[in-house]
Amino acid sequence: MEVRNRYVATRRHVEGAPTEADFEVIEGTARWSPDSGEVLVKNLFLSIDPYQLNRMKVTSASHHAVDGILPGQRIAAYTAGEVVASASPEYAAGDVVVGVFGWEEYSLFDPSSPATAATVHKVAGGGGGGFPLSHHLSVLGTSGMTAYAGLFEVCKPAKGEKVFVSAASGSVGSLAGQFAKLAGCYVVGCAGTQAKVDLLKDKLGFDDAFNYKEEPDLKSALKRYFPDGIDIYFENVGGEMLEAALANMNTYGRVALSGVISEYTGAGRRAVPDLLEVIYKRITIRGFFAWDFLPKFPEFGAVIGEWIRQGKVHVLEDVSEGIDSVPAAFAALFRGHNVGKKLVKLA
Amino acid sequence: MEVRNRYVATRRHVEGAPTEADFEVIEGTARWSPDSGEVLVKNLFLSIDPYQLNRMKVTSASHHAVDGILPGQRIAAYTAGEVVASASPEYAAGDVVVGVFGWEEYSLFDPSSPATAATVHKVAGGGGGGFPLSHHLSVLGTSGMTAYAGLFEVCKPAKGEKVFVSAASGSVGSLAGQFAKLAGCYVVGCAGTQAKVDLLKDKLGFDDAFNYKEEPDLKSALKRYFPDGIDIYFENVGGEMLEAALANMNTYGRVALSGVISEYTGAGRRAVPDLLEVIYKRITIRGFFAWDFLPKFPEFGAVIGEWIRQGKVHVLEDVSEGIDSVPAAFAALFRGHNVGKKLVKLA
Repeated sequence: MEVRNRYVATRRHVEGAPTEADFEVIEGTARWSPDSGEVLVKNLFLSIDPYQLNRMKVTSASHHAVDGILPGQRIAAYTAGEVVASASPEYAAGDVVVGVFGWEEYSLFDPSSPATAATVHKVAGGGGGGFPLSHHLSVLGTSGMTAYAGLFEVCKPAKGEKVFVSAASGSVGSLAGQFAKLAGCYVVGCAGTQAKVDLLKDKLGFDDAFNYKEEPDLKSALKRYFPDGIDIYFENVGGEMLEAALANMNTYGRVALSGVISEYTGAGRRAVPDLLEVIYKRITIRGFFAWDFLPKFPEFGAVIGEWIRQGKVHVLEDVSEGIDSVPAAFAALFRGHNVGKKLVKLA
Repeated sequence: MEVRNRYVATRRHVEGAPTEADFEVIEGTARWSPDSGEVLVKNLFLSIDPYQLNRMKVTSASHHAVDGILPGQRIAAYTAGEVVASASPEYAAGDVVVGVFGWEEYSLFDPSSPATAATVHKVAGGGGGGFPLSHHLSVLGTSGMTAYAGLFEVCKPAKGEKVFVSAASGSVGSLAGQFAKLAGCYVVGCAGTQAKVDLLKDKLGFDDAFNYKEEPDLKSALKRYFPDGIDIYFENVGGEMLEAALANMNTYGRVALSGVISEYTGAGRRAVPDLLEVIYKRITIRGFFAWDFLPKFPEFGAVIGEWIRQGKVHVLEDVSEGIDSVPAAFAALFRGHNVGKKLVKLA
C-alpha cells in the first residue's frame, strides 16, 4: 500500500525568528506492506510547538536532549491520527493514536521499537475517549502535562501562594495559570495584547493580568501586581521577564522553567539573573520536561480530565487547516499570534 | 562592669571591592551589670566572610534576608569567645560560646531574646569540645554546615558522580570538595594560584584542579577536566564560571548556590546563563543558606566531627591577629589572598 504523503521540512537551518520561507512542503509517499510489522497512521491533527525551533538550529543546547533537524528531513512532532493499516497485532485499522510522528499527512511506525513505542499511545475508547481528539495534543497532551508537572511536581504550590505565569495565554501558560487557581493560589498572568489580557481575566479566571508590552519597567509592574511578592514563577519567556520575577520573588520562591520563547530566536536579550537574589531568597530554578514525569501521566491525565468534565478548565486551541498551513502556523508562534495551543488540522 | 571594647565599623557604604580605608576601628566600651540579664563575652576568634560585603552596600538583594549595615555601626559576625560575666542562669563565666556577635573585642547578648538565643550555642566540654576553638567558626561552623548542606541536602550526590567546585581553596569550597570525595565522587576544583591548585591536589585529595586565571576559555577547560560532563556544581563564584559549568553539565545536573564572590564586588561581569541548557538538561539551580538546615546541624556536626577525628578532612584556616587586622583581612578575601577560612584571633 502506497499513499501520497506531503510533509514539511526546513529548507535550511533556521536561526533567529522563523519565516514561512524557511520551510517547504515536500511531496512524498508512504509505503506500507503487511509483512513490515509497521503501522500506517493518517494524521488528523499536528502539534505546532515553539521548542521545535531549537532543533532546527545548527547548534543548540537542545541537541543535548534531541537530535538536530536537518534541512529536507521530516520534522518530528506530536500528532493525533487514525490507523489505516496495521501489520502489528497491537493496532488495528480505526484505532486512534497519539505519538511523536511528524509534520506530515501520513506516518509509519514500528511498535516493536521501544523508543517509538514509548511515545505512542492509543486513545481509550477511540475518537478521543470522550474528549475532542485535539485535546490529546493540548490539555491532555504535552502542554497539559508540562503545566501540571511544572506546577505540582516542580513548584508544589500551597494554598494562597502567589503565582506569576508569563506567556499566560499560550498553550502551557494558559493551563498552568488555571491549574494554579484550582490549587487555591493567587494567579497573575502576562501576555502581549489587550485581548489576551481580557481573556485571562474574563474567561480563564486569572486574578489579574497585564500586557507586558505596555510596561516600560517590568520590575515595577510586578511589584504592583504582587505587593506581597511572588512565590512561584511559571516561566515561559526568559530574558528581562525572569530578572523582573526574581527581583519580586519571596523567600523560598520556585521557578519552573520549561520554555523561554524570547530566548529561542535570539531576538531579545538573554536573562542576567541577579544571583544574589537567588541566594538570599533561597530560590530554586529548575529546568524540566513533562516527559521526566512520564510514569505519572495517567494520574495527571485523570485529574485534568475530571477538571475538564466539571467545566473547571477552559481549553484554548488555535487551529489552522491543511499541511500547507504549517509553516505560517509555526512562524506565527514567535510573533505571539496564537492563543492557546497551536494545532494544524488535516482534512 | 565596664570594659574597653574596640570594634570595627564601615566609614561609608562600601560599593565595589572593599579596601582597608573603608573601615575604622572605633574605641568603645561594653557595660555589663548583674541585673541586666545579659552575658558578656570576650571574643577569641572573629569570622571574616565574603557575604558581609553585601550587607555593607546601600542596596543589595541581601537586604531581603538581613538588614544592611550602616556606617559607624558594629558589624555583625560570627565569633567564638569566653563568657567573662553572666547575669543569666544559662551561662557562667568560663563557658565557651559561639554566636552571631560582631567584629569587636567584647560582645553583650541577652539569652532571653529568642532571635539572639537561636544564633548562640555553648561549645560542649568547654575549650572546643576536643577540637581547636577556631574549628567552631570554620569546619564545625557556618562554612562546614554550608558545605555539608549544599552538597548532601541540596545536591544529593551519588557515588561516582562528577563534582566541580569553584573557589575550591576557600572556606566552603575546600570542605565541599573534600566532602564530595568522602561521598565517593570524582572532584575537580579551581582556584586562582598554582600554590592553591597544588594544595587541592596534594593535600586535600581532589582528583584534579586547575588555575582558572590561566584558562582563556573556561568552557573548554571544563570540557577537558570533565570529558563525561559535570553532575554537580558547587558554586562559589558566579559570572562566566557559572556559564561554563552549565555548558558542561549533564542531564539532571544540580547547582548549589551559596555564594558568588565574583558578583559581590561588581568587578567581573554577571552570569548570563544559557537557559536552554537549564531546560534541556533539566538542571536545578538552588540558592540556599546553611541556616535553612539548622535543625540538622547537630547531625551534620557529628558526621563532620567524626571525619576530622579520623583524619579524613583537612581543615584550612587562615588566621590574622588582633582587631586592627580585620579590615585588611576582609579586603584580602576579595583579592583571593586567603587559603581556607579567614579568621582573626584576638589576644
